[in-house]
Amino acid sequence: MNREETAVHDHRKLGRELGLFDTDPLIGAGLPYWPPAGAAVRHALEEYVRTAEQRAGYRHVYSPVLGKRELYELSGHWAHYSDDMFPPMRLGGEQVVLRPSLCPHHALIYRSRSRSYRELPLRLAELGGMYRSELSGVLGGLTRVRAITLNDAHVFCTPDQVAAEARAALEMIRRAYRALGITPTRYRLSLPGPGGKYVAAPEKWERSVALLIEVLDASGLPYEAAEGEAAFYGPKIDVQVTDGSGRESTLSTVQVDFHQPEQFDLHYIGADGAEHRPVMVHRSIIGSVERAVAHLVEQHGGALPAWLAPVQLVVLPVSDAEAPHAEAFARRCAERGLRVEVARADRGSLGARIRTARLVPYQAVIGAREAAAGRVALRLRDGRRIDPGPIDDALARIGALVDARTTGLWEDATERAA
Amino acid sequence: MNREETAVHDHRKLGRELGLFDTDPLIGAGLPYWPPAGAAVRHALEEYVRTAEQRAGYRHVYSPVLGKRELYELSGHWAHYSDDMFPPMRLGGEQVVLRPSLCPHHALIYRSRSRSYRELPLRLAELGGMYRSELSGVLGGLTRVRAITLNDAHVFCTPDQVAAEARAALEMIRRAYRALGITPTRYRLSLPGPGGKYVAAPEKWERSVALLIEVLDASGLPYEAAEGEAAFYGPKIDVQVTDGSGRESTLSTVQVDFHQPEQFDLHYIGADGAEHRPVMVHRSIIGSVERAVAHLVEQHGGALPAWLAPVQLVVLPVSDAEAPHAEAFARRCAERGLRVEVARADRGSLGARIRTARLVPYQAVIGAREAAAGRVALRLRDGRRIDPGPIDDALARIGALVDARTTGLWEDATERAA
Repeated sequence: MNREETAVHDHRKLGRELGLFDTDPLIGAGLPYWPPAGAAVRHALEEYVRTAEQRAGYRHVYSPVLGKRELYELSGHWAHYSDDMFPPMRLGGEQVVLRPSLCPHHALIYRSRSRSYRELPLRLAELGGMYRSELSGVLGGLTRVRAITLNDAHVFCTPDQVAAEARAALEMIRRAYRALGITPTRYRLSLPGPGGKYVAAPEKWERSVALLIEVLDASGLPYEAAEGEAAFYGPKIDVQVTDGSGRESTLSTVQVDFHQPEQFDLHYIGADGAEHRPVMVHRSIIGSVERAVAHLVEQHGGALPAWLAPVQLVVLPVSDAEAPHAEAFARRCAERGLRVEVARADRGSLGARIRTARLVPYQAVIGAREAAAGRVALRLRDGRRIDPGPIDDALARIGALVDARTTGLWEDATERAA
Repeated sequence: MNREETAVHDHRKLGRELGLFDTDPLIGAGLPYWPPAGAAVRHALEEYVRTAEQRAGYRHVYSPVLGKRELYELSGHWAHYSDDMFPPMRLGGEQVVLRPSLCPHHALIYRSRSRSYRELPLRLAELGGMYRSELSGVLGGLTRVRAITLNDAHVFCTPDQVAAEARAALEMIRRAYRALGITPTRYRLSLPGPGGKYVAAPEKWERSVALLIEVLDASGLPYEAAEGEAAFYGPKIDVQVTDGSGRESTLSTVQVDFHQPEQFDLHYIGADGAEHRPVMVHRSIIGSVERAVAHLVEQHGGALPAWLAPVQLVVLPVSDAEAPHAEAFARRCAERGLRVEVARADRGSLGARIRTARLVPYQAVIGAREAAAGRVALRLRDGRRIDPGPIDDALARIGALVDARTTGLWEDATERAA
């Protein structure tokens, strides 16, 4: 590889260079936007997660990013979290506020009709916006933002189902990390600490912590407990990752919540015909798409897994004479669903163009011989070459990428097509 | 069909019955959420539009739903549109506001770097949120909402390219209407009217109106001019649809804007090496997903085109004995990407279950004979039957649906698989 393996990659610099995100003072601090290259990565990531969740029995919903102030008074956010919330807006006689999390909306969807034990576990998932009024001094890149797109889900289940749901969520996280090429630093059992930040319900905290310890112990994963890191409503298993400069942060999480089901007076009708209280398991597989992409860029030095790369294939005609062949090949790749670009000879020597495209997973070189024979020579970004072969073979080889992506079956970040 | 062809369908009633959307007083008026059935429809619609746009050379972006007050002062929204905007929120020394439209964000993305005429037309597309502070009295269902998800795009182009881009957008709208089974009521040339709502630039209005008339005349479409219906920044071609009770509204739109390129001081470097001002063509293929789904539900009486239906196939075991076969067939359909449900015999007689599933495009009946022979009898929602055949044939037939959807090639709302 051309890039140094030991280099510390800063996603803020690399992400802007690759066109993955940017900011504008007129939009405001902590409110990044995603230009086309970044939007392609983000959409691929979102569809991967959505497909994985569908297969795991999650049902997706869309809910608005706004709620009435009363909603957060009921959920407990207003009392325990309002310092981090955006200020409410007055509309007529109402006060609406940008939501600090998705759980209250999902609790309302749950209770919008009567639920039977036969429906449980009911797994509601959403890729949705949430908002945090961070101070402008701490904002930067994709890791500290005011507008967050969270890969979120809430499993409404019986107390007996909590452990299995938490275990399944941990397993989904591990599969996603394999697909994304992410190595977790450690698993953390996040417990409450001193101070008034947490809801007072000692018995519920004990039950939740005991359940999470049961899950962690059964998983065989090493973990550390940390006080003062819980959510205000319950303890968490946090999956920690570390950035290039050694800073640790939480990417994925599994949480047990006895608090909000009570606040929202949630019920299900049990096999006994009586009303029972469900538990909410909050879980996120990749956390926010902002932080996930920031981490991916840093971990891979910009060389994202092929299914996720903003440009998956660059076609390099050796000279202008092969440009029409290059364009025709690129069109066929695009029809196959690949993100493809042609780097024509007017952009520099072949060597210079290959260096420019060093983060692109596949480079297809088309010289006079290949053009005449209807062949293409593939090169991987790690320098490996594949002998020139028929265009259809190259298409089939790279096309496997697309199929893997769209079917959500891509479970290994390495370049299989090699 | 069981439903009366002449019935007036109200999407508010039918949409709630079908689980397409709902509201909750704690979220607030005009802020609907989409339960799983509605979210499936919405996602299919969004992915269809995204694919169609990709194929037409649009490049997708994501931008935040917030901007600084100064952004809207610059764009002209503050002066011309602030009555419809949410109130600004103070964060430290800044005022941020929920955006009333996506165009200012896209203008900033355009000007984030130098642009050459070779890049034009640059077509930036986004499915993004925007917000309107409608009075709570007028809010209802999916047609009058405070949170809008707009299928939006802005084509930055030279003045010479405007007509071709507007024509191409109209053609995309017509293709989408064929895929969705929507019949436009009329095309409207929306002109400014008296009053201070419009930016004062008579020469620009004349140029824009002339361009849109040229496009409409060349298209051969009949249209009517309407004063007082323009955007504050320029005239529009609006595609009008009519709901069950005869109320007309705008679904799709193509707009020419000379105003914002000047406000944002947008440039491109021409072939002559000098700076030139681009034009912005605003266009939406299906309008907001909220209004599009409302209209689709009303137009089709809930019997959505098969590729869009919340449940595409219901599997009906005649008795409990065939339930395992039904479940196995449903699993194979789900693996193929279909939205499938099993309606078991405990839900009622076969006739009653077929009536309940009357809006589902395909009904697969599995009786003792079919189960024994590994066959399935397909029934369409209009009552047509397909002779029992091998399961693989049924899968292939219905699977064509999925492929049509995922490849964006589905261009006809009728049931081809018949």
